[in-house]
Amino acid sequence: MSLRFAVLGAGRIGQVHARAIASVDGAELIAIAEPFEAAAKAAQEKFGCELRTIDEVAASDDIDAVVICTPTDTHADLIEKFAKVGKAVFCEKPIDLNVERVKQAIATVEAEGTTLMVGFNRRFDPDFMAVKAAIDNGTLGDVEMVTITSRDPGAPPAEYIKVSGGIFRDMTIHDFDMARWLLGEEIQTVMAQASNLVDPAIGALGDYDSVNVILRTATGKQAVITNSRRATYGYDQRIEVHGSKGMAAAKNTAEANIEVATADGFKQPPLLNFFMSRYTAAYANEIAAFVDAVAKGAETPTTGHDGLKALELAEAALKSAQTGQAVRL
Amino acid sequence: MSLRFAVLGAGRIGQVHARAIASVDGAELIAIAEPFEAAAKAAQEKFGCELRTIDEVAASDDIDAVVICTPTDTHADLIEKFAKVGKAVFCEKPIDLNVERVKQAIATVEAEGTTLMVGFNRRFDPDFMAVKAAIDNGTLGDVEMVTITSRDPGAPPAEYIKVSGGIFRDMTIHDFDMARWLLGEEIQTVMAQASNLVDPAIGALGDYDSVNVILRTATGKQAVITNSRRATYGYDQRIEVHGSKGMAAAKNTAEANIEVATADGFKQPPLLNFFMSRYTAAYANEIAAFVDAVAKGAETPTTGHDGLKALELAEAALKSAQTGQAVRL
Amino acid sequence: MSLRFAVLGAGRIGQVHARAIASVDGAELIAIAEPFEAAAKAAQEKFGCELRTIDEVAASDDIDAVVICTPTDTHADLIEKFAKVGKAVFCEKPIDLNVERVKQAIATVEAEGTTLMVGFNRRFDPDFMAVKAAIDNGTLGDVEMVTITSRDPGAPPAEYIKVSGGIFRDMTIHDFDMARWLLGEEIQTVMAQASNLVDPAIGALGDYDSVNVILRTATGKQAVITNSRRATYGYDQRIEVHGSKGMAAAKNTAEANIEVATADGFKQPPLLNFFMSRYTAAYANEIAAFVDAVAKGAETPTTGHDGLKALELAEAALKSAQTGQAVRL
Amino acid sequence: MSLRFAVLGAGRIGQVHARAIASVDGAELIAIAEPFEAAAKAAQEKFGCELRTIDEVAASDDIDAVVICTPTDTHADLIEKFAKVGKAVFCEKPIDLNVERVKQAIATVEAEGTTLMVGFNRRFDPDFMAVKAAIDNGTLGDVEMVTITSRDPGAPPAEYIKVSGGIFRDMTIHDFDMARWLLGEEIQTVMAQASNLVDPAIGALGDYDSVNVILRTATGKQAVITNSRRATYGYDQRIEVHGSKGMAAAKNTAEANIEVATADGFKQPPLLNFFMSRYTAAYANEIAAFVDAVAKGAETPTTGHDGLKALELAEAALKSAQTGQAVRL
Repeated sequence: MSLRFAVLGAGRIGQVHARAIASVDGAELIAIAEPFEAAAKAAQEKFGCELRTIDEVAASDDIDAVVICTPTDTHADLIEKFAKVGKAVFCEKPIDLNVERVKQAIATVEAEGTTLMVGFNRRFDPDFMAVKAAIDNGTLGDVEMVTITSRDPGAPPAEYIKVSGGIFRDMTIHDFDMARWLLGEEIQTVMAQASNLVDPAIGALGDYDSVNVILRTATGKQAVITNSRRATYGYDQRIEVHGSKGMAAAKNTAEANIEVATADGFKQPPLLNFFMSRYTAAYANEIAAFVDAVAKGAETPTTGHDGLKALELAEAALKSAQTGQAVRL
Repeated sequence: MSLRFAVLGAGRIGQVHARAIASVDGAELIAIAEPFEAAAKAAQEKFGCELRTIDEVAASDDIDAVVICTPTDTHADLIEKFAKVGKAVFCEKPIDLNVERVKQAIATVEAEGTTLMVGFNRRFDPDFMAVKAAIDNGTLGDVEMVTITSRDPGAPPAEYIKVSGGIFRDMTIHDFDMARWLLGEEIQTVMAQASNLVDPAIGALGDYDSVNVILRTATGKQAVITNSRRATYGYDQRIEVHGSKGMAAAKNTAEANIEVATADGFKQPPLLNFFMSRYTAAYANEIAAFVDAVAKGAETPTTGHDGLKALELAEAALKSAQTGQAVRL
Repeated sequence: MSLRFAVLGAGRIGQVHARAIASVDGAELIAIAEPFEAAAKAAQEKFGCELRTIDEVAASDDIDAVVICTPTDTHADLIEKFAKVGKAVFCEKPIDLNVERVKQAIATVEAEGTTLMVGFNRRFDPDFMAVKAAIDNGTLGDVEMVTITSRDPGAPPAEYIKVSGGIFRDMTIHDFDMARWLLGEEIQTVMAQASNLVDPAIGALGDYDSVNVILRTATGKQAVITNSRRATYGYDQRIEVHGSKGMAAAKNTAEANIEVATADGFKQPPLLNFFMSRYTAAYANEIAAFVDAVAKGAETPTTGHDGLKALELAEAALKSAQTGQAVRL
Repeated sequence: MSLRFAVLGAGRIGQVHARAIASVDGAELIAIAEPFEAAAKAAQEKFGCELRTIDEVAASDDIDAVVICTPTDTHADLIEKFAKVGKAVFCEKPIDLNVERVKQAIATVEAEGTTLMVGFNRRFDPDFMAVKAAIDNGTLGDVEMVTITSRDPGAPPAEYIKVSGGIFRDMTIHDFDMARWLLGEEIQTVMAQASNLVDPAIGALGDYDSVNVILRTATGKQAVITNSRRATYGYDQRIEVHGSKGMAAAKNTAEANIEVATADGFKQPPLLNFFMSRYTAAYANEIAAFVDAVAKGAETPTTGHDGLKALELAEAALKSAQTGQAVRL
């Protein structure tokens, strides 16, 4: 029998998850909860599902699981609300911008004995999974260094920056999770440098748009993260893992796999420009993994704990960037 | 309102089209017709549609279009049957192995004034479309030479070879259509060499598994096609267009976009191994184009005429391979 | 002790060989013979060698070997002249445009028991040698198909075309040799199509600038050659070998190994634009192989026989292009 | 007239420079000074030059310039010795492991008004120069981030590590120079993490083999350097520059530019394994630049000041790695 879903929030990421649910065997989209009427109607038409309020979803017998795609400041409350009524919860990152609130929400979930998965979609990207497989099958030997390059095609508007929690909590958080996943050890030390080079409006809000971070584990393994809120050539998403026996790298994905050669040289199209097209397969795999874990009563591949750890790394990186000192966790 | 489909034949390619219909906006799968009960049941469950006989489909008011995925020797009869009851017809290539029968079927469709699209899925592959765009927007100047490399991961069983019409009609036929599409002119002369190198069972049936073809238009433009029924490294599907101003090439698609470097060198995964995964997007685009053409009452991008031309080229290539002479159409 | 060389002819290719001799251990450039005084002086200064006439070279005790880089119509005479005085001879391709004259020259060399190597530089290119190694070490299994793409950056002037013997004897001749080398069997059947698409002046001289050739051995192995006198993106030189176990391909060489990504996409520089820069290493390896063969009294890796075979294939291809029939050798 | 050279030291790097001098127009190798007789004889035979002592070289009228390839602890003395006798000096990096001694040597050269070029060969690599050109011609807009990956094929023996000054002064020093060159601004802040992951013998000597460094200029531009004393797949040498308008990257150089595809996937050969083959062209370009600067009486492209700055960055990185604090210069 299929896992019956409600998606909370029909914005961009809510639609991504609704589509993912529709494409995954064993998942069924029953309802969407969205306060803005126009958006709600559009989603209903697109996905052929019902419209319910959040409270109605919580009270629904025909809903097994919710996907939380509402604004960040509602995540923790909703996690707790749905944990308490026994629904399995998939929540977009971050759980909250405040570490204590995150711990509280996780504690509630644990107390209720329900399922919580946090949306770190990149772990489910087929290319990144192939790199992880090269680690897990021993091809690379002992992992020594991880290099993550993540550049957004463009900076978000100031309105978004204001509520984002800053670049480390909003953007680098994905890379912190990737680093933990690929290193296979917890991070002990964080060093970071942060600059404002892309958009002065970001600097005016006290945030950064260009950062580099070095992470280090207790055994001396390291990861380097490079982030920019700018990349003229598309959504730049690369990982590289260097080990005692070899190196594995996931390359970028272009709009089309062609080349055109003229007197100017050889040219390939820019990269896929948006997270939705770049990570289409990852979002579907992610929901499939959630469905699978719920079906088996198993732990989800990304947990509340992973969400917490990534947030702690974000805070440490921010502190290091501000003080010029390595921060020890 | 959506175009309501029945798929005739629930074999491998029938399922590909059923899935494509499910993924395309404006297309709806109503029924499948499949004589083998197990296959029919499996398809019904998978796609959540009704099961009807071919005659029932022909008599159905709630079916606007059929996709013919039955054995080749039934194609022409079914095209005519459904043209006569006013259904739009999408037919897998080839229409028939006999040129005269193909002409007859086309004539029937024309007499009835209905729609017939022939399934040359490669024209709808995003990478090949990007190469075509480089021609159409003038980047390449005048097209001079087209190079098409198509190698199957493995040879089909002898049972299939027997009814396939031979490599030129079964496999190269796709490349003949690509060559016409990319050259933008009709072929005037065909030269071919054909060998049996892969599987002696193929040779025993009088067929070939390794062929090269040179096509030439009246203005001297040329295309070269290389085919093999073998490719240990996956499904090899490349096109290259050389013109007065430049060259464009569509590259192969690997299982994952990663590289692993060890003391042995750098390694990337093999190519996607099967037409269904390699051309997933192409099959969806193809159905979308059919839906669009029917909705607008416009000509379909690939027609019965295209099917006929490709078949004529296949016959000419076979004759050239057998006689050692260029064959003029 | 070093092999002491004289280079006959100080034109473009003569200078290439003089430079190659200077860079090879065990080779020493003693003299250049060049009738045009300015060219002779320039070469003398560049290479710090003596100037002698061809007759002086023939009479020189301190010259062991000559490299013939004079106009094609003098090659056969010079081969015979220097064979008769016991010098080892390296001759640029072709030996002559006339098959009978080639046979005569080879017979003279054999009668004198001296050494003759014909300049098929591509066999000595490191990348092509690496592809050949993949054949020889069994990685590819049985060779089934060879694909050779060779496009010149631009068409030569009409004056050159007039004395060149036509595209098959002048340009494709390299590819005929490569095909024989890579197939490992003699060619039995030749099919060709030839067009005039690049420069009408070439057509006015009865020559072609755009050709495709299919070669076939007695066992059914095939090679395809694609040539054009035009490539806006540089000197396009690719080979691909497909066998029962795999495929090997030598890729093109760009001016620099970089990529630049902007909003327009990813861009790499054009290819090395000229045979001298593209094949620098090949020319040095070629001379080294000649030196080595002479030192050991061994057969040279490319012989007069190879020159003859390539010329016969050129004649067969021309005949096939003119008659539309496969030509059997 | 040619610049007449003596090379001091006929070890590995001395031979690299001797060969470079032989290949550069306008440079002539007169003598080599090498205390070990066997090495001296071998070099004399190889390069066909004289053998002189260092004092004889200093007293020679027929020597215009020296290339210092002796052990590091003699560099500063030799720079001063030859500056005082008016020879142009090319010195391998580093000038000295001690910053004060470096300053002293530079002061002596300035007082004598002679030429000193420090060997940062990578600035003269054709691929890196092409990346620099993309900065200089404005293609990349304002430089924001530089990423440098440098991994050695294997760790040097402990004997070498002992006198090397440590990884930052011995290996990263090249990358510090590259970062300054590519950023186009002086570094203000240095952060580093250093681990011992490759060879415990290195750790036992108090040195590291795996380091990451973040550099930052006063305007907030950043560079990241990743170093390892291990790379199973060859000599890994990459740079990437990200700017407001785009990105440029120099890719690695493989042993051969081919790919081999089998059931295991696509494979390319490992990277060129040694600095001498990887940077052959760079070493020649470097000597040519030195010759050119001396001929014109112009400043050399890399100066004593560049050597000093790179050394200061190495010291700062070491201090940051040891203290966990950003070090400000």
